[in-house]
Amino acid sequence: VRPRGIHPTAVVSERAVLGENVSIGAYAIVEAGVTVGANSFVGPHCILGEPGAGYYQGDDTAIPTSIGEGAIIRSHTVVYAGVRIGPNLRTGHHATVREETVAGRNFQVGTGSDVQGRCSIGDYVRLHSRVFVPEHTVLHDYVWLFPGALITNDPHPPSDGATVGPTIGAYAVIGAGSVILPSLHIGKDAVVAAASVVTRDVAEGQLVVGAPARARGNASELVKSRDPKLERPYPWREHFSRGFPWEKPKGGI
Amino acid sequence: VRPRGIHPTAVVSERAVLGENVSIGAYAIVEAGVTVGANSFVGPHCILGEPGAGYYQGDDTAIPTSIGEGAIIRSHTVVYAGVRIGPNLRTGHHATVREETVAGRNFQVGTGSDVQGRCSIGDYVRLHSRVFVPEHTVLHDYVWLFPGALITNDPHPPSDGATVGPTIGAYAVIGAGSVILPSLHIGKDAVVAAASVVTRDVAEGQLVVGAPARARGNASELVKSRDPKLERPYPWREHFSRGFPWEKPKGGI
Amino acid sequence: VRPRGIHPTAVVSERAVLGENVSIGAYAIVEAGVTVGANSFVGPHCILGEPGAGYYQGDDTAIPTSIGEGAIIRSHTVVYAGVRIGPNLRTGHHATVREETVAGRNFQVGTGSDVQGRCSIGDYVRLHSRVFVPEHTVLHDYVWLFPGALITNDPHPPSDGATVGPTIGAYAVIGAGSVILPSLHIGKDAVVAAASVVTRDVAEGQLVVGAPARARGNASELVKSRDPKLERPYPWREHFSRGFPWEKPKGGI
Repeated sequence: VRPRGIHPTAVVSERAVLGENVSIGAYAIVEAGVTVGANSFVGPHCILGEPGAGYYQGDDTAIPTSIGEGAIIRSHTVVYAGVRIGPNLRTGHHATVREETVAGRNFQVGTGSDVQGRCSIGDYVRLHSRVFVPEHTVLHDYVWLFPGALITNDPHPPSDGATVGPTIGAYAVIGAGSVILPSLHIGKDAVVAAASVVTRDVAEGQLVVGAPARARGNASELVKSRDPKLERPYPWREHFSRGFPWEKPKGGI
Repeated sequence: VRPRGIHPTAVVSERAVLGENVSIGAYAIVEAGVTVGANSFVGPHCILGEPGAGYYQGDDTAIPTSIGEGAIIRSHTVVYAGVRIGPNLRTGHHATVREETVAGRNFQVGTGSDVQGRCSIGDYVRLHSRVFVPEHTVLHDYVWLFPGALITNDPHPPSDGATVGPTIGAYAVIGAGSVILPSLHIGKDAVVAAASVVTRDVAEGQLVVGAPARARGNASELVKSRDPKLERPYPWREHFSRGFPWEKPKGGI
Repeated sequence: VRPRGIHPTAVVSERAVLGENVSIGAYAIVEAGVTVGANSFVGPHCILGEPGAGYYQGDDTAIPTSIGEGAIIRSHTVVYAGVRIGPNLRTGHHATVREETVAGRNFQVGTGSDVQGRCSIGDYVRLHSRVFVPEHTVLHDYVWLFPGALITNDPHPPSDGATVGPTIGAYAVIGAGSVILPSLHIGKDAVVAAASVVTRDVAEGQLVVGAPARARGNASELVKSRDPKLERPYPWREHFSRGFPWEKPKGGI
């Protein structure tokens, strides 16, 4: 239904490098210095290689941005110059990823999510809709942030000192609508319940709930009452595999 | 000031069906399979008929989307293929409505709001700015969600089990910045105060306040102190009529 | 890298007035009645002079909008007809500023922020990402709203009575993820901690924390523990100057 290939209205710089079989949607913009890997889709009204602050002061350097193969970047998304993202990126609509952020493979950024600059993001990290990730945040592999999760990075804003970001450990789950106060460390496999306000570091595997969030023991001890199919929901990687490396191929014996 | 009609830069599929007197703004995209009713406005940079996941795997079926007459769809809004919405839709800017969602007449979706797939939405439902409505949500007629309200649908994310959405009863009011925890039922005429976190079902007509939200009696017993013109604010349909079927025509005797 | 000047794809009304050396990005729209001051940048996919409700009822008046010189308006931003903003505006992406809002010089509106109509905004006001400012809000000079801050204006929604907005005093800081309940006054130099829910007026200089927010003394008495460089973080204007009139010029002896 939507034609594949490079739409005639797209503005693609001659100094952008597109892999084989890349589709660029109507009214999309790909600036100089951008590389998009093979078999990727760039949706309508997207901008790849959005210039940073220097551009407005006259700097015309084409800072490289690279996006790995197999990306699906949905409409109205903006990726800045100076970003490096591995293969299989997925974005929703109206997402932003700012300068000097580096992300691994299979990164997902949901609709309306905003990843600020200089973040370090592992593999298979998933941000659902309208997640906010501030500058210098470190997200380890397999982290999930659910809708509306908000991370902060400045204990006493405004200040010039917020150069150490928060760190979220591998497999950690940050529930919908929760707020992580500045400069905290959330441990591997930790679970922050929805609508929590996290004011202290969270230890590995710990479940925290509420505002301010209180420890409720190890998440692996949580027994799920509402879904009879799923006795122990955490660690989630023991029952959830869709899209992850440990997913079993469908069909066949 | 802005010309009406189909802007020369709009990309409108030959297999889209536009009613009489439809305006399509600059740089808007209307894909194959989309029907837009008469007297509608589609703003600049909108996309109607955005393809779902199958498209990226090679599926080129034009899944029908229909939007009833008299719609006003503001700029940068995205409506997916497979959506069915009644007459008099209103959207703000940067809104999204995803696949297989069905909505009745006079649906309003505010700026930055995100309605996920497979929702069932009654008549005269109003979502203000940046509301999040997850998959499978059921919103009955005349429901209001105020700015930043966030509904969730998975008790222990991530999981494969979240196929039963939350339900919000007719005339219910969900205040700004509140979070509805997964799979709850909010009763008809209930009122959730701003910034509440709802952790349990809310009975018909009940007012709940706080995080976690506590019952504060029947909303109809609430006496408004700050506005001398309005003694009893709830049920709101007894004093508020703008845009609703019970609105009295202006003028006349 | 991105060419300066008026991009050939931009739709600029003959009745728009552009100062010297203005750049208009690809696919941007500047409607009749809009004035943009010299040395400004209007990003791709922006709309300046978005028509209000009257347009859909047949009104074709070009209501003036003026944006002062030196503006940087980033992509996908929408500024309505009937807005008046001073010099040095900065916006992020996907921001909206609605009709009859008036703002002073050096106004910043972050990515995804939504400023509703009829607001009165002083000089050097800074809204970070996805801030929501409702109709009739008054923000005095040097106010900061951090990511996800949400202001509300109707004590018992829906109603027809919400014509008095909240007021935030000069230099006040509203932390990330906080919610200001309707019609409150936040005093000059006050500090609302992140993730707070403010239910009462906040006196000048006061620090409030929590949900509901409780007073914790004067913000100037707060001693910062986490950053050894900064003993007393508030009032912030005593140590933070970047971009403000009291910033010292760089270099010299």
